[in-house]
Amino acid sequence: MNASLDDCLKTALDAADIAREITGRHFRTRLAVDNKQDQSPVTIADRETEEAIRALIRSRHPGHGIFGEEGGNQIQEKHWHWIIDPIDGTRSFASGRPTFGTLIALMDARKPALGVIDHGILDERWVGTTGSGTTLNERPCATRRETRIGHCSIYATSPDMFDEESMIRFRELADRCQYRVWGGDCYCYGLLAAGYTDIVCEADLYPYDYLPLVPVVEGAGGIITDWDGNALTLDSGDKVLATANEKLHLAALALLNR
Amino acid sequence: MNASLDDCLKTALDAADIAREITGRHFRTRLAVDNKQDQSPVTIADRETEEAIRALIRSRHPGHGIFGEEGGNQIQEKHWHWIIDPIDGTRSFASGRPTFGTLIALMDARKPALGVIDHGILDERWVGTTGSGTTLNERPCATRRETRIGHCSIYATSPDMFDEESMIRFRELADRCQYRVWGGDCYCYGLLAAGYTDIVCEADLYPYDYLPLVPVVEGAGGIITDWDGNALTLDSGDKVLATANEKLHLAALALLNR
Repeated sequence: MNASLDDCLKTALDAADIAREITGRHFRTRLAVDNKQDQSPVTIADRETEEAIRALIRSRHPGHGIFGEEGGNQIQEKHWHWIIDPIDGTRSFASGRPTFGTLIALMDARKPALGVIDHGILDERWVGTTGSGTTLNERPCATRRETRIGHCSIYATSPDMFDEESMIRFRELADRCQYRVWGGDCYCYGLLAAGYTDIVCEADLYPYDYLPLVPVVEGAGGIITDWDGNALTLDSGDKVLATANEKLHLAALALLNR
Repeated sequence: MNASLDDCLKTALDAADIAREITGRHFRTRLAVDNKQDQSPVTIADRETEEAIRALIRSRHPGHGIFGEEGGNQIQEKHWHWIIDPIDGTRSFASGRPTFGTLIALMDARKPALGVIDHGILDERWVGTTGSGTTLNERPCATRRETRIGHCSIYATSPDMFDEESMIRFRELADRCQYRVWGGDCYCYGLLAAGYTDIVCEADLYPYDYLPLVPVVEGAGGIITDWDGNALTLDSGDKVLATANEKLHLAALALLNR
Protein backbone atom coordinates (compact mmCIF):
# COMPACT_ATOMS: atom_id res chain seq x y z
CA MET A 1 0.00 0.00 0.00
CA ASN A 2 1.45 3.39 -0.96
CA ALA A 3 1.70 6.41 1.30
CA SER A 4 -1.53 7.92 0.06
CA LEU A 5 -3.54 4.77 0.81
CA ASP A 6 -1.91 4.70 4.24
CA ASP A 7 -3.21 8.22 4.82
CA CYS A 8 -6.66 7.13 3.72
CA LEU A 9 -6.57 4.13 6.04
CA LYS A 10 -5.75 6.50 8.90
CA THR A 11 -8.74 8.64 7.91
CA ALA A 12 -11.01 5.58 7.78
CA LEU A 13 -9.94 4.47 11.26
CA ASP A 14 -10.35 7.98 12.67
CA ALA A 15 -13.79 8.15 11.05
CA ALA A 16 -14.72 4.84 12.72
CA ASP A 17 -13.55 6.25 16.07
CA ILE A 18 -15.79 9.27 15.56
CA ALA A 19 -18.71 6.97 14.73
CA ARG A 20 -18.10 4.99 17.93
CA GLU A 21 -18.20 8.15 20.00
CA ILE A 22 -21.42 9.48 18.47
CA THR A 23 -23.35 6.21 18.21
CA GLY A 24 -22.20 5.17 21.68
CA ARG A 25 -23.50 8.42 23.11
CA HIS A 26 -26.94 7.95 21.52
CA PHE A 27 -27.28 4.17 22.01
CA ARG A 28 -30.20 3.20 24.27
CA THR A 29 -31.33 6.78 24.80
CA ARG A 30 -34.74 6.00 23.22
CA LEU A 31 -34.23 8.27 20.21
CA ALA A 32 -37.13 9.16 17.96
CA VAL A 33 -37.17 6.97 14.86
CA ASP A 34 -38.33 8.51 11.56
CA ASN A 35 -39.25 6.54 8.47
CA LYS A 36 -37.54 7.65 5.27
CA GLN A 37 -39.25 7.62 1.87
CA ASP A 38 -38.30 3.97 1.34
CA GLN A 39 -39.73 3.24 4.81
CA SER A 40 -36.28 2.46 6.24
CA PRO A 41 -35.80 4.03 9.67
CA VAL A 42 -33.39 6.82 10.55
CA THR A 43 -32.45 8.62 13.76
CA ILE A 44 -30.56 11.75 14.65
CA ALA A 45 -27.56 9.50 15.40
CA ASP A 46 -27.41 8.29 11.77
CA ARG A 47 -27.39 11.88 10.51
CA GLU A 48 -24.96 13.22 13.11
CA THR A 49 -22.51 10.37 12.53
CA GLU A 50 -22.50 10.76 8.76
CA GLU A 51 -22.08 14.52 8.99
CA ALA A 52 -19.06 14.17 11.29
CA ILE A 53 -17.43 11.57 9.03
CA ARG A 54 -18.05 13.74 5.98
CA ALA A 55 -16.46 16.74 7.71
CA LEU A 56 -13.37 14.67 8.56
CA ILE A 57 -12.97 13.39 4.99
CA ARG A 58 -13.53 16.86 3.46
CA SER A 59 -10.84 18.35 5.72
CA ARG A 60 -8.27 15.63 5.00
CA HIS A 61 -9.06 14.81 1.35
CA PRO A 62 -10.76 17.84 -0.22
CA GLY A 63 -10.46 16.37 -3.72
CA HIS A 64 -12.28 13.15 -2.91
CA GLY A 65 -15.94 12.39 -3.58
CA ILE A 66 -18.34 11.21 -0.85
CA PHE A 67 -21.48 9.06 -1.07
CA GLY A 68 -23.34 8.38 2.16
CA GLU A 69 -26.67 6.81 3.06
CA GLU A 70 -28.07 9.92 4.70
CA GLY A 71 -26.35 12.78 2.86
CA GLY A 72 -26.55 11.57 -0.72
CA ASN A 73 -24.09 11.32 -3.55
CA GLN A 74 -21.30 13.85 -4.17
CA ILE A 75 -19.07 11.61 -6.27
CA GLN A 76 -19.38 13.14 -9.74
CA GLU A 77 -16.29 12.25 -11.74
CA LYS A 78 -13.94 11.85 -8.78
CA HIS A 79 -11.44 8.99 -9.07
CA TRP A 80 -11.14 8.55 -5.30
CA HIS A 81 -14.36 8.53 -3.37
CA TRP A 82 -15.70 7.40 -0.04
CA ILE A 83 -18.79 5.36 0.71
CA ILE A 84 -20.38 5.76 4.16
CA ASP A 85 -23.18 3.98 5.97
CA PRO A 86 -23.10 5.71 9.35
CA ILE A 87 -25.37 3.12 11.01
CA ASP A 88 -25.96 -0.14 9.20
CA GLY A 89 -28.74 -1.80 11.15
CA THR A 90 -30.65 1.25 12.34
CA ARG A 91 -33.49 -1.05 13.46
CA SER A 92 -31.08 -2.87 15.79
CA PHE A 93 -29.54 0.40 16.95
CA ALA A 94 -32.91 2.01 17.71
CA SER A 95 -34.11 -1.03 19.65
CA GLY A 96 -31.00 -1.32 21.80
CA ARG A 97 -29.28 -4.26 20.10
CA PRO A 98 -25.53 -3.71 19.70
CA THR A 99 -25.12 -5.60 16.40
CA PHE A 100 -25.47 -2.40 14.32
CA GLY A 101 -22.27 -1.13 12.74
CA THR A 102 -20.61 1.66 10.80
CA LEU A 103 -19.46 0.97 7.22
CA ILE A 104 -16.74 2.95 5.44
CA ALA A 105 -15.12 2.28 2.07
CA LEU A 106 -12.58 4.09 -0.05
CA MET A 107 -13.17 3.53 -3.77
CA ASP A 108 -10.25 3.49 -6.21
CA ALA A 109 -12.37 4.42 -9.21
CA ARG A 110 -14.80 1.50 -9.52
CA LYS A 111 -13.07 -0.83 -7.05
CA PRO A 112 -13.24 -0.66 -3.23
CA ALA A 113 -9.61 -0.34 -2.04
CA LEU A 114 -10.29 -0.44 1.67
CA GLY A 115 -13.26 -1.24 3.83
CA VAL A 116 -14.11 -0.95 7.52
CA ILE A 117 -16.90 -2.72 9.43
CA ASP A 118 -16.95 -1.23 12.91
CA HIS A 119 -19.07 -2.36 15.86
CA GLY A 120 -18.43 0.14 18.61
CA ILE A 121 -20.53 -1.28 21.43
CA LEU A 122 -19.20 -4.79 20.78
CA ASP A 123 -15.67 -3.40 20.38
CA GLU A 124 -15.06 -5.31 17.15
CA ARG A 125 -13.52 -3.71 14.08
CA TRP A 126 -12.85 -5.43 10.79
CA VAL A 127 -10.47 -3.68 8.37
CA GLY A 128 -9.79 -4.95 4.85
CA THR A 129 -7.31 -3.41 2.42
CA THR A 130 -6.42 -4.46 -1.11
CA GLY A 131 -3.43 -6.74 -1.00
CA SER A 132 -2.95 -6.60 2.79
CA GLY A 133 -5.62 -8.99 4.01
CA THR A 134 -8.27 -8.45 6.67
CA THR A 135 -7.91 -7.89 10.39
CA LEU A 136 -10.35 -8.19 13.29
CA ASN A 137 -9.18 -5.88 16.07
CA GLU A 138 -5.77 -5.67 14.38
CA ARG A 139 -5.27 -9.45 14.20
CA PRO A 140 -5.40 -11.19 10.80
CA CYS A 141 -8.56 -13.21 10.25
CA ALA A 142 -9.62 -15.73 7.61
CA THR A 143 -12.76 -17.43 6.36
CA ARG A 144 -13.57 -21.13 6.86
CA ARG A 145 -12.47 -23.72 4.29
CA GLU A 146 -15.72 -25.74 4.50
CA THR A 147 -17.05 -26.41 1.00
CA ARG A 148 -20.05 -28.68 1.74
CA ILE A 149 -23.23 -26.59 1.83
CA GLY A 150 -24.89 -29.06 4.19
CA HIS A 151 -22.25 -28.23 6.80
CA CYS A 152 -22.64 -24.47 6.45
CA SER A 153 -24.61 -21.83 8.31
CA ILE A 154 -26.24 -19.00 6.36
CA TYR A 155 -27.22 -15.49 7.49
CA ALA A 156 -29.70 -12.93 6.17
CA THR A 157 -30.81 -9.81 7.99
CA SER A 158 -34.54 -10.12 7.34
CA PRO A 159 -37.05 -12.07 5.25
CA ASP A 160 -38.52 -8.67 4.41
CA MET A 161 -35.50 -8.15 2.11
CA PHE A 162 -36.83 -10.66 -0.38
CA ASP A 163 -39.66 -10.35 -2.88
CA GLU A 164 -41.51 -13.50 -3.90
CA GLU A 165 -39.07 -14.47 -6.64
CA SER A 166 -35.89 -13.77 -4.67
CA MET A 167 -37.30 -15.62 -1.64
CA ILE A 168 -37.74 -18.72 -3.79
CA ARG A 169 -34.13 -18.41 -4.96
CA PHE A 170 -32.87 -17.74 -1.41
CA ARG A 171 -34.67 -20.86 -0.16
CA GLU A 172 -33.10 -23.04 -2.83
CA LEU A 173 -29.81 -22.20 -1.15
CA ALA A 174 -30.81 -21.75 2.49
CA ASP A 175 -32.82 -24.98 2.71
CA ARG A 176 -29.64 -26.93 1.91
CA CYS A 177 -27.53 -25.29 4.64
CA GLN A 178 -27.19 -26.89 8.07
CA TYR A 179 -28.95 -23.98 9.70
CA ARG A 180 -29.89 -20.38 9.03
CA VAL A 181 -29.64 -17.35 11.27
CA TRP A 182 -31.59 -14.11 10.90
CA GLY A 183 -30.91 -10.54 11.90
CA GLY A 184 -27.37 -10.02 10.76
CA ASP A 185 -26.89 -6.45 9.60
CA CYS A 186 -23.27 -5.95 8.55
CA TYR A 187 -22.11 -7.99 11.55
CA CYS A 188 -22.74 -11.25 9.67
CA TYR A 189 -20.15 -10.30 7.01
CA GLY A 190 -17.64 -9.75 9.80
CA LEU A 191 -18.53 -13.16 11.25
CA LEU A 192 -17.96 -14.65 7.80
CA ALA A 193 -14.58 -12.91 7.44
CA ALA A 194 -13.56 -14.27 10.85
CA GLY A 195 -14.56 -17.84 9.98
CA TYR A 196 -17.66 -18.23 12.16
CA THR A 197 -20.32 -18.39 9.47
CA ASP A 198 -20.06 -19.49 5.85
CA ILE A 199 -22.67 -17.79 3.70
CA VAL A 200 -24.51 -14.46 3.74
CA CYS A 201 -27.21 -14.05 1.10
CA GLU A 202 -29.20 -10.82 0.98
CA ALA A 203 -31.28 -8.56 -1.24
CA ASP A 204 -32.69 -5.03 -1.13
CA LEU A 205 -29.22 -3.57 -0.43
CA TYR A 206 -27.67 -0.31 -1.60
CA PRO A 207 -24.06 0.39 -2.62
CA TYR A 208 -23.31 1.91 0.82
CA ASP A 209 -24.51 -1.38 2.38
CA TYR A 210 -22.25 -3.66 0.36
CA LEU A 211 -19.21 -1.81 -1.09
CA PRO A 212 -17.43 -1.46 2.31
CA LEU A 213 -17.86 -5.23 2.83
CA VAL A 214 -15.90 -6.16 -0.29
CA PRO A 215 -12.30 -5.61 0.92
CA VAL A 216 -13.13 -7.16 4.31
CA VAL A 217 -14.61 -10.35 2.84
CA GLU A 218 -12.07 -10.68 0.01
CA GLY A 219 -9.08 -9.89 2.23
CA ALA A 220 -10.09 -12.75 4.53
CA GLY A 221 -10.23 -15.25 1.66
CA GLY A 222 -13.95 -15.03 0.97
CA ILE A 223 -15.86 -14.20 -2.20
CA ILE A 224 -18.53 -11.50 -2.50
CA THR A 225 -20.53 -10.83 -5.68
CA ASP A 226 -24.07 -10.20 -6.84
CA TRP A 227 -26.36 -13.23 -7.33
CA ASP A 228 -25.02 -13.68 -10.88
CA GLY A 229 -21.41 -13.88 -9.74
CA ASN A 230 -20.47 -10.37 -10.92
CA ALA A 231 -18.15 -8.09 -8.95
CA LEU A 232 -19.97 -5.47 -6.87
CA THR A 233 -19.79 -1.87 -8.10
CA LEU A 234 -21.78 1.31 -7.61
CA ASP A 235 -24.06 0.09 -10.40
CA SER A 236 -24.74 -3.41 -9.10
CA GLY A 237 -28.28 -4.49 -8.38
CA ASP A 238 -29.57 -4.97 -4.85
CA LYS A 239 -28.51 -8.60 -4.34
CA VAL A 240 -25.37 -9.78 -2.54
CA LEU A 241 -23.89 -13.23 -1.99
CA ALA A 242 -20.86 -13.62 0.28
CA THR A 243 -19.28 -16.99 0.92
CA ALA A 244 -16.21 -18.32 2.67
CA ASN A 245 -14.39 -19.66 -0.40
CA GLU A 246 -14.57 -20.06 -4.15
CA LYS A 247 -15.86 -23.63 -4.28
CA LEU A 248 -18.70 -22.76 -1.91
CA HIS A 249 -19.45 -19.65 -3.94
CA LEU A 250 -19.85 -21.59 -7.17
CA ALA A 251 -22.12 -24.12 -5.46
CA ALA A 252 -24.21 -21.34 -3.89
CA LEU A 253 -24.53 -19.45 -7.19
CA ALA A 254 -25.67 -22.64 -8.91
CA LEU A 255 -28.46 -23.08 -6.33
CA LEU A 256 -29.53 -19.42 -6.53
CA ASN A 257 -29.80 -19.73 -10.32
CA ARG A 258 -31.33 -23.19 -10.73
CA MET B 1 -39.15 -12.82 49.27
CA ASN B 2 -38.59 -15.34 52.08
CA ALA B 3 -35.26 -16.89 53.05
CA SER B 4 -35.81 -19.96 50.93
CA LEU B 5 -36.47 -17.93 47.78
CA ASP B 6 -33.36 -15.88 48.61
CA ASP B 7 -31.36 -19.12 48.64
CA CYS B 8 -32.84 -20.08 45.30
CA LEU B 9 -31.99 -16.68 43.82
CA LYS B 10 -28.40 -17.20 44.94
CA THR B 11 -28.42 -20.60 43.22
CA ALA B 12 -29.82 -19.09 40.02
CA LEU B 13 -27.11 -16.41 39.94
CA ASP B 14 -24.36 -18.94 40.65
CA ALA B 15 -25.78 -21.14 37.88
CA ALA B 16 -25.66 -18.17 35.49
CA ASP B 17 -22.02 -17.57 36.47
CA ILE B 18 -21.22 -21.21 35.68
CA ALA B 19 -22.96 -20.85 32.31
CA ARG B 20 -20.87 -17.75 31.53
CA GLU B 21 -17.67 -19.61 32.26
CA ILE B 22 -18.52 -22.64 30.12
CA THR B 23 -20.15 -20.86 27.18
CA GLY B 24 -17.41 -18.20 27.20
CA ARG B 25 -14.75 -20.90 27.00
CA HIS B 26 -16.42 -22.55 23.98
CA PHE B 27 -17.55 -19.38 22.16
CA ARG B 28 -15.94 -18.94 18.73
CA THR B 29 -13.95 -22.19 18.96
CA ARG B 30 -15.71 -23.59 15.85
CA LEU B 31 -17.51 -26.36 17.72
CA ALA B 32 -19.19 -29.19 15.84
CA VAL B 33 -22.93 -28.57 15.54
CA ASP B 34 -25.28 -31.57 15.66
CA ASN B 35 -28.92 -31.51 14.64
CA LYS B 36 -31.35 -32.93 17.20
CA GLN B 37 -34.45 -34.91 16.25
CA ASP B 38 -36.46 -31.72 15.84
CA GLN B 39 -33.62 -30.39 13.63
CA SER B 40 -32.64 -27.75 16.19
CA PRO B 41 -28.87 -27.53 16.59
CA VAL B 42 -26.90 -28.49 19.69
CA THR B 43 -23.21 -28.35 20.66
CA ILE B 44 -21.07 -29.81 23.40
CA ALA B 45 -21.33 -26.41 25.12
CA ASP B 46 -25.14 -26.72 25.45
CA ARG B 47 -24.78 -30.14 27.08
CA GLU B 48 -21.84 -29.26 29.31
CA THR B 49 -23.55 -26.08 30.57
CA GLU B 50 -26.82 -27.82 31.40
CA GLU B 51 -25.03 -30.66 33.17
CA ALA B 52 -23.07 -28.23 35.36
CA ILE B 53 -26.21 -26.25 36.26
CA ARG B 54 -28.08 -29.47 37.08
CA ALA B 55 -25.24 -30.60 39.34
CA LEU B 56 -25.31 -27.28 41.21
CA ILE B 57 -29.09 -27.41 41.72
CA ARG B 58 -29.03 -31.07 42.81
CA SER B 59 -26.33 -30.34 45.41
CA ARG B 60 -28.11 -27.28 46.83
CA HIS B 61 -31.77 -28.32 46.48
CA PRO B 62 -31.95 -32.13 46.36
CA GLY B 63 -35.74 -32.12 46.72
CA HIS B 64 -36.37 -29.91 43.68
CA GLY B 65 -37.29 -31.10 40.20
CA ILE B 66 -35.34 -30.08 37.08
CA PHE B 67 -36.46 -29.71 33.45
CA GLY B 68 -33.81 -28.73 30.92
CA GLU B 69 -33.66 -28.48 27.14
CA GLU B 70 -30.88 -31.02 26.74
CA GLY B 71 -31.34 -33.35 29.73
CA GLY B 72 -35.11 -33.80 29.75
CA ASN B 73 -37.76 -33.60 32.41
CA GLN B 74 -37.25 -34.78 36.01
CA ILE B 75 -40.08 -32.77 37.57
CA GLN B 76 -42.60 -35.48 38.49
CA GLU B 77 -44.77 -34.21 41.35
CA LYS B 78 -42.23 -31.75 42.77
CA HIS B 79 -43.69 -28.45 43.97
CA TRP B 80 -40.46 -26.53 43.40
CA HIS B 81 -38.74 -27.16 40.12
CA TRP B 82 -36.19 -25.54 37.89
CA ILE B 83 -36.37 -24.85 34.16
CA ILE B 84 -33.09 -24.53 32.25
CA ASP B 85 -32.20 -23.57 28.71
CA PRO B 86 -28.39 -23.68 28.82
CA ILE B 87 -27.97 -21.87 25.48
CA ASP B 88 -31.00 -20.13 24.04
CA GLY B 89 -29.93 -19.19 20.52
CA THR B 90 -27.58 -22.06 19.73
CA ARG B 91 -27.56 -20.93 16.08
CA SER B 92 -26.20 -17.53 17.16
CA PHE B 93 -23.75 -19.14 19.57
CA ALA B 94 -22.41 -21.59 17.00
CA SER B 95 -21.92 -18.86 14.40
CA GLY B 96 -20.08 -16.49 16.73
CA ARG B 97 -22.84 -14.00 17.49
CA PRO B 98 -22.96 -13.01 21.16
CA THR B 99 -26.74 -12.53 21.41
CA PHE B 100 -27.29 -16.10 22.68
CA GLY B 101 -28.18 -16.40 26.37
CA THR B 102 -28.77 -18.75 29.28
CA LEU B 103 -32.30 -19.04 30.71
CA ILE B 104 -33.07 -20.21 34.24
CA ALA B 105 -36.41 -20.25 36.08
CA LEU B 106 -37.58 -21.49 39.45
CA MET B 107 -41.17 -22.67 39.38
CA ASP B 108 -43.39 -22.33 42.45
CA ALA B 109 -45.75 -25.15 41.43
CA ARG B 110 -47.27 -23.85 38.17
CA LYS B 111 -45.99 -20.28 38.42
CA PRO B 112 -42.45 -19.05 37.63
CA ALA B 113 -41.23 -17.34 40.82
CA LEU B 114 -37.88 -16.13 39.49
CA GLY B 115 -36.27 -15.91 36.09
CA VAL B 116 -32.81 -15.09 34.76
CA ILE B 117 -31.82 -14.09 31.23
CA ASP B 118 -28.04 -14.03 31.13
CA HIS B 119 -25.85 -12.88 28.23
CA GLY B 120 -22.30 -13.63 29.25
CA ILE B 121 -20.35 -12.26 26.30
CA LEU B 122 -22.40 -9.07 26.31
CA ASP B 123 -22.16 -8.88 30.11
CA GLU B 124 -25.90 -8.26 30.52
CA ARG B 125 -27.99 -10.10 33.07
CA TRP B 126 -31.70 -9.65 33.63
CA VAL B 127 -33.17 -10.99 36.88
CA GLY B 128 -36.89 -11.00 37.65
CA THR B 129 -38.44 -12.14 40.93
CA THR B 130 -42.07 -12.24 41.98
CA GLY B 131 -42.91 -9.06 43.82
CA SER B 132 -39.41 -7.56 43.62
CA GLY B 133 -39.30 -6.26 40.06
CA THR B 134 -36.70 -6.78 37.38
CA THR B 135 -33.08 -5.67 37.24
CA LEU B 136 -30.58 -5.36 34.40
CA ASN B 137 -27.09 -5.74 35.84
CA GLU B 138 -28.52 -5.10 39.30
CA ARG B 139 -30.26 -1.85 38.36
CA PRO B 140 -34.08 -1.76 38.20
CA CYS B 141 -35.45 -1.63 34.66
CA ALA B 142 -38.89 -1.00 33.21
CA THR B 143 -40.77 -1.38 29.95
CA ARG B 144 -41.88 1.51 27.70
CA ARG B 145 -45.26 3.15 28.20
CA GLU B 146 -45.97 3.52 24.45
CA THR B 147 -49.42 2.20 23.60
CA ARG B 148 -49.72 3.08 19.89
CA ILE B 149 -48.78 0.06 17.80
CA GLY B 150 -47.67 2.28 14.91
CA HIS B 151 -44.95 3.70 17.16
CA CYS B 152 -43.68 0.31 18.29
CA SER B 153 -40.91 -2.00 17.16
CA ILE B 154 -41.49 -5.75 17.12
CA TYR B 155 -39.01 -8.64 17.36
CA ALA B 156 -39.15 -12.28 16.31
CA THR B 157 -36.18 -14.63 16.16
CA SER B 158 -36.91 -16.19 12.79
CA PRO B 159 -39.65 -16.43 10.14
CA ASP B 160 -38.99 -20.18 10.25
CA MET B 161 -40.84 -20.20 13.60
CA PHE B 162 -44.17 -19.63 11.89
CA ASP B 163 -46.31 -22.02 9.88
CA GLU B 164 -48.57 -20.57 7.20
CA GLU B 165 -51.46 -19.78 9.54
CA SER B 166 -49.36 -18.29 12.34
CA MET B 167 -47.38 -16.21 9.81
CA ILE B 168 -50.64 -14.65 8.62
CA ARG B 169 -51.56 -13.84 12.23
CA PHE B 170 -48.05 -12.52 12.98
CA ARG B 171 -48.23 -10.24 9.94
CA GLU B 172 -51.57 -8.79 11.02
CA LEU B 173 -49.68 -7.46 14.02
CA ALA B 174 -46.19 -6.88 12.62
CA ASP B 175 -47.35 -4.96 9.54
CA ARG B 176 -48.88 -2.34 11.83
CA CYS B 177 -45.71 -1.75 13.87
CA GLN B 178 -43.28 1.00 12.95
CA TYR B 179 -40.57 -1.53 12.17
CA ARG B 180 -39.67 -5.16 12.82
CA VAL B 181 -36.36 -6.69 13.77
CA TRP B 182 -35.35 -10.32 13.30
CA GLY B 183 -32.94 -12.60 15.09
CA GLY B 184 -33.72 -11.96 18.70
CA ASP B 185 -33.28 -15.16 20.72
CA CYS B 186 -34.01 -14.45 24.39
CA TYR B 187 -32.14 -11.14 24.11
CA CYS B 188 -35.22 -9.43 22.65
CA TYR B 189 -37.22 -10.13 25.82
CA GLY B 190 -34.45 -8.47 27.80
CA LEU B 191 -34.57 -5.49 25.45
CA LEU B 192 -38.33 -5.32 26.02
CA ALA B 193 -37.89 -5.47 29.81
CA ALA B 194 -35.36 -2.63 29.61
CA GLY B 195 -37.67 -0.44 27.50
CA TYR B 196 -35.86 -0.60 24.15
CA THR B 197 -38.39 -2.59 22.16
CA ASP B 198 -42.13 -2.93 22.63
CA ILE B 199 -43.38 -6.26 21.31
CA VAL B 200 -41.97 -9.76 20.88
CA CYS B 201 -44.21 -12.24 19.07
CA GLU B 202 -42.97 -15.78 18.51
CA ALA B 203 -44.04 -19.36 17.87
CA ASP B 204 -42.46 -22.82 17.94
CA LEU B 205 -41.21 -22.29 21.51
CA TYR B 206 -40.89 -24.79 24.36
CA PRO B 207 -41.50 -24.23 28.10
CA TYR B 208 -37.73 -23.85 28.73
CA ASP B 209 -37.70 -21.07 26.12
CA TYR B 210 -40.47 -19.02 27.67
CA LEU B 211 -41.02 -19.79 31.38
CA PRO B 212 -37.78 -18.05 32.51
CA LEU B 213 -38.88 -14.92 30.60
CA VAL B 214 -42.10 -14.51 32.57
CA PRO B 215 -40.75 -13.00 35.84
CA VAL B 216 -38.33 -10.78 33.88
CA VAL B 217 -41.00 -9.32 31.60
CA GLU B 218 -43.70 -9.06 34.28
CA GLY B 219 -41.34 -7.61 36.90
CA ALA B 220 -40.44 -4.81 34.47
CA GLY B 221 -44.09 -3.90 33.92
CA GLY B 222 -44.66 -5.89 30.74
CA ILE B 223 -47.20 -8.58 29.90
CA ILE B 224 -46.37 -12.04 28.55
CA THR B 225 -48.98 -14.63 27.57
CA ASP B 226 -49.79 -17.09 24.81
CA TRP B 227 -51.50 -15.74 21.68
CA ASP B 228 -54.90 -16.14 23.35
CA GLY B 229 -53.95 -14.04 26.35
CA ASN B 230 -53.54 -16.98 28.75
CA ALA B 231 -50.78 -17.13 31.37
CA LEU B 232 -47.80 -19.27 30.34
CA THR B 233 -47.41 -22.63 32.09
CA LEU B 234 -45.63 -25.91 31.40
CA ASP B 235 -48.69 -26.91 29.38
CA SER B 236 -48.98 -23.82 27.20
CA GLY B 237 -48.80 -24.15 23.45
CA ASP B 238 -45.80 -22.96 21.45
CA LYS B 239 -46.85 -19.33 20.94
CA VAL B 240 -45.70 -16.35 23.01
CA LEU B 241 -46.64 -12.67 22.95
CA ALA B 242 -44.74 -10.22 25.14
CA THR B 243 -45.56 -6.53 25.19
CA ALA B 244 -44.50 -3.49 27.15
CA ASN B 245 -47.85 -2.78 28.84
CA GLU B 246 -51.42 -3.93 29.19
CA LYS B 247 -53.04 -1.59 26.68
CA LEU B 248 -50.53 -2.60 24.02
CA HIS B 249 -51.08 -6.25 24.89
CA LEU B 250 -54.84 -6.04 24.36
CA ALA B 251 -54.34 -4.27 21.05
CA ALA B 252 -51.76 -6.85 19.91
CA LEU B 253 -53.98 -9.79 20.94
CA ALA B 254 -56.87 -8.30 19.00
CA LEU B 255 -54.74 -8.12 15.85
CA LEU B 256 -53.39 -11.66 16.29
CA ASN B 257 -56.96 -12.94 16.62
CA ARG B 258 -58.79 -10.89 14.01
